Amino acid sequence: MALRYFEDFHPGEVIELGSREVTEAEIIAFGREFDPQYFHTDPKAAAASVWGGLVASGWHTTALFMRLLVDGFLKDVASLASPGIDEIRWLRPVRPGDRLSARLTLLEAIPSQSNAERGTFKQLGELFNQRGELVMSLRPIALIGRRPARA
Amino acid sequence: MALRYFEDFHPGEVIELGSREVTEAEIIAFGREFDPQYFHTDPKAAAASVWGGLVASGWHTTALFMRLLVDGFLKDVASLASPGIDEIRWLRPVRPGDRLSARLTLLEAIPSQSNAERGTFKQLGELFNQRGELVMSLRPIALIGRRPARA
Repeated sequence: MALRYFEDFHPGEVIELGSREVTEAEIIAFGREFDPQYFHTDPKAAAASVWGGLVASGWHTTALFMRLLVDGFLKDVASLASPGIDEIRWLRPVRPGDRLSARLTLLEAIPSQSNAERGTFKQLGELFNQRGELVMSLRPIALIGRRPARA
Repeated sequence: MALRYFEDFHPGEVIELGSREVTEAEIIAFGREFDPQYFHTDPKAAAASVWGGLVASGWHTTALFMRLLVDGFLKDVASLASPGIDEIRWLRPVRPGDRLSARLTLLEAIPSQSNAERGTFKQLGELFNQRGELVMSLRPIALIGRRPARA
């Protein structure tokens, strides 16, 4: 697939990024390494808590979204960097066995005033579970290369 | 250490969360699993690029901050959940061998209007490298339990 550039996308465009399942083992491994709170690492204690069972770290959920974003979008795009995220909302728990589907909506495409070789995308990312419930939304900012004159 | 509650903290308070080093192997492992772009996974290709070498995924950087936040703060606090993050800014690259130090500043402490058992903290998180450069800032929101009447 040919590389796609800033000019190849338009505000309002919606890109389905595919889906993946998350396992109990993955939730525990991520929790142990990066977010060792019992509701991410200890199924028994989590079951006895208000959570009613193990839930994925919010940071694991963002990382899973990122993987879907790379595989479903960035790998074919002249992506340069991200200066950050304008907002993350963790709306519902992600649990072992959930199948997560990601969607990206392009909100704004802003050519750089100072660098003719790039532009900024403001985006809305959404992650749904297998029941179609929105579990997370986020607003990533992306620096994207413009199409070279010779391309 | 006794559990600390919403009432035990005050706006303006600054909490140093400790530090940790990040290795090349960790950067590559995280990149391969969650953010397989070459500048996170391929040292040679990264060295030949504008990045001038391998850099950590921004999501790896947030996860490392979270680990420092759990070890340096949340493990002793009646932390209930986080509804989200108001902003993340990735300001400078994180590279193999960097030692990252985290700091948390409590910006606002808002008692819940609907639930006498909890309140919301709005916070500023900052992550610095070994040269004292700010590599990331973020604005987490935390739901924190209030001190039980009998405690």
